[in-house]
Amino acid sequence: MSAPPGHVVVIGAGMAGLAAAHHLVAAGLEVVVLEARDRVGGRVEGGHVADGTPVELGGQWIGPTQNRMYQLVAELGLATFETYNRGSMIIDLLGRRTAVSGRRGAVPRLGPFGLADLAQGLARFTRLSRRTDLRRPWLSPDAQELDGQTLHTWIHRNLATPTGRAYFAVAAEAVFATDARDLSLLHALFYAHSGADLETLLAVDRGAQQHRVVGGSIRIAEVLADRLGDRIRLNAPVARIEHDDQGVTVIDRAGCREQADFALVTVPPTLAGRIDYAPALPSWRDQLTQRVPAGSVIKAHLAYDEPFWRADGLSGQAASDHGPVKVTFDNSPPEPGPGVLVAFAEGGDARRLARMSARERRDAVITRVTGYFGPRAGTVVDYLERDWMAQEFSRGCYGAHFAPGVWTGYGDALTRPVGRIHWAGAECSPVWNGYMEGAVRSGEDAAAAIIGRAAR
Amino acid sequence: MSAPPGHVVVIGAGMAGLAAAHHLVAAGLEVVVLEARDRVGGRVEGGHVADGTPVELGGQWIGPTQNRMYQLVAELGLATFETYNRGSMIIDLLGRRTAVSGRRGAVPRLGPFGLADLAQGLARFTRLSRRTDLRRPWLSPDAQELDGQTLHTWIHRNLATPTGRAYFAVAAEAVFATDARDLSLLHALFYAHSGADLETLLAVDRGAQQHRVVGGSIRIAEVLADRLGDRIRLNAPVARIEHDDQGVTVIDRAGCREQADFALVTVPPTLAGRIDYAPALPSWRDQLTQRVPAGSVIKAHLAYDEPFWRADGLSGQAASDHGPVKVTFDNSPPEPGPGVLVAFAEGGDARRLARMSARERRDAVITRVTGYFGPRAGTVVDYLERDWMAQEFSRGCYGAHFAPGVWTGYGDALTRPVGRIHWAGAECSPVWNGYMEGAVRSGEDAAAAIIGRAAR
Repeated sequence: MSAPPGHVVVIGAGMAGLAAAHHLVAAGLEVVVLEARDRVGGRVEGGHVADGTPVELGGQWIGPTQNRMYQLVAELGLATFETYNRGSMIIDLLGRRTAVSGRRGAVPRLGPFGLADLAQGLARFTRLSRRTDLRRPWLSPDAQELDGQTLHTWIHRNLATPTGRAYFAVAAEAVFATDARDLSLLHALFYAHSGADLETLLAVDRGAQQHRVVGGSIRIAEVLADRLGDRIRLNAPVARIEHDDQGVTVIDRAGCREQADFALVTVPPTLAGRIDYAPALPSWRDQLTQRVPAGSVIKAHLAYDEPFWRADGLSGQAASDHGPVKVTFDNSPPEPGPGVLVAFAEGGDARRLARMSARERRDAVITRVTGYFGPRAGTVVDYLERDWMAQEFSRGCYGAHFAPGVWTGYGDALTRPVGRIHWAGAECSPVWNGYMEGAVRSGEDAAAAIIGRAAR
Repeated sequence: MSAPPGHVVVIGAGMAGLAAAHHLVAAGLEVVVLEARDRVGGRVEGGHVADGTPVELGGQWIGPTQNRMYQLVAELGLATFETYNRGSMIIDLLGRRTAVSGRRGAVPRLGPFGLADLAQGLARFTRLSRRTDLRRPWLSPDAQELDGQTLHTWIHRNLATPTGRAYFAVAAEAVFATDARDLSLLHALFYAHSGADLETLLAVDRGAQQHRVVGGSIRIAEVLADRLGDRIRLNAPVARIEHDDQGVTVIDRAGCREQADFALVTVPPTLAGRIDYAPALPSWRDQLTQRVPAGSVIKAHLAYDEPFWRADGLSGQAASDHGPVKVTFDNSPPEPGPGVLVAFAEGGDARRLARMSARERRDAVITRVTGYFGPRAGTVVDYLERDWMAQEFSRGCYGAHFAPGVWTGYGDALTRPVGRIHWAGAECSPVWNGYMEGAVRSGEDAAAAIIGRAAR
């Protein structure tokens, strides 16, 4: 295989791929980005409700310590605004609905026993979590033992009250888009630590949901894509990667071939595993991608004439152990205008909704949201949903999760290049794993590694 | 799409695909079998050691209650013989090596405390296991709770002695080719029940290892393939399946197209998930195949001039908690001749061996086997191994396993057809799941379902 020196094919124009491509181009390398969809952004996608108000169909928020994202937003000439976070949050646990002062929008007041239990549980989880090795989770203290049990097992051993357990289970669903039963405890600990702690992941105020991007998070991808120009080829799902010690040839489903010195695969692990590699990848890499599935989530936007809940003293945030929607946020535009609630169905709820008709699903979501915010929540002027499980080129969101045994059995195969093939994506980052911040960092880290090799 | 009526494309010429094709042909349907490899058999493969003695590189044994296999072997004019099972078994647990009377070759004598603990653990496991619903494991009593924990968690809660725990962990590795940390308890219970019980899965005498097929298990596949003749197309890995309510078009990597009324996909779930389906499969099926990985095993044959261990009063069977080889059997031919030991490296052991050079791996295996059977085990005249993780068209063995949450989240998508696409394979059977018996039953069940639809 012959190729111009310093030529890289990036697979995937999500946040990781775009950030990597940007970095590679800045270093003077030749780059082609192959994107399966007819748009950039990957698991970040823009949409519009009602009168044209932009909303985020996929990843949307950024928050403190996501420094690379704030920097990037500024570099690209974009602006952020605060997620609406005034008033009370609806907590509906074990059949009891209460409007409580949200503090950080993370840990509600639950009554003395539940609150004490939840507080000790969170403290214990955070203590354990801080001991995880972010770069090599499989070398954390007691890694085998932590990776040998589910998060569900840990919750039942370490929380004593039904309220504490229920809240922890909902938190797990909201953070991982999957049930606590599906997750390795080690993964949950690593993941929380990679962001900061579980409370930060759940919080609006000083948390992972603090800021939104004016025009929607998709603007970041669009401006990056504008700069990359015709280096990006849309509608080019990659089917095959031929590779040897001289270079790579990347072939899309239509048979178009791109030769290069390096390939950077930025699609989620489960999709990376579906590419036909020739020669086939080593077993440790292949068996890894068999074991890192995507989460289950349907994200729905409910638009109203105005954010009516604000007048009721409510923040638009809800958390419940009762589906199909267990978590909501106020996703209205920063300027006066329509009110928008964003509602998440996750894990088993998402799977059940996915089998309904579009009409049944819409009704089920609106009915549940009405349970939180009253009958006016039924007066939607627009409804817009995205079933991320059904998206052929994501096959789940938000990120991927590690089942028990996978970090300790396969962790070192996650980012280690195979010959001239490098790996990146939100799942590959030791910092803010699973978030846009992690995706961008991972893309830039992989780009730096390729730049280093190309210079040799 | 137009196609002759009653035309079926079977994907995969393993035991399930061959049995299904045979059944379909007998019912008068037109069948093409597309096989990725240059041979039939799938995870069943023949090899030869030393002077030409046939050995089984993949699935090999059959045992009582595997009625369909005994029937099939007889139908095909083949014969079985007993696995050598006389003399003592080597048990090497917690650093103590002892030769013990093997009873069924399943549960050794371990000293009073260890044995009592193991016996109560096995009894408890079997009791729980008998409650699983084999056709719908997700509807078993307490399914959510059983599926929310790993087998490792259960072992640590229910066995009290180091010996009992160690033996249970080795048994899990030997049965599932993966660590007890990786497995859903519900899956382990279902799987044991689908065969009979854990002791039967481990046993030679009256167990899953009781019989071998004269000439090797591959003879079953070969005779079936002979009968199917040129209906089988080798070297045809399937890349894409186009499907609608009229029929299917199955396209291999070389672009060859087969049109038919139905497709029957018999490859393991993780490989079925890599086919490009157009339209894309529903999310519940796609997310299932993201979550059912193949096990990790390297199977090695060590050939000697004679089965020297027999003269020492040993059965050739070993079980240990100390890798890289934790389980061995006598795999010598039925007639007088060379001695053959078969050695299994599973789970983490298999992954570690896979990263060694061929020479280092051979040395590590032989050294460990010498630890069981003495210095004469070092005098191999031939060594033959198969790393099933590295096989591009299996990507792991023996079967697939379900991580926590997968049966309860996705179980009903395992065998339910999607339009005109049906599913089969060892993983799909409620009876002897993961075994040749399960593969054949599943293939025949799926064939019967297609025959029923074609007749309409």
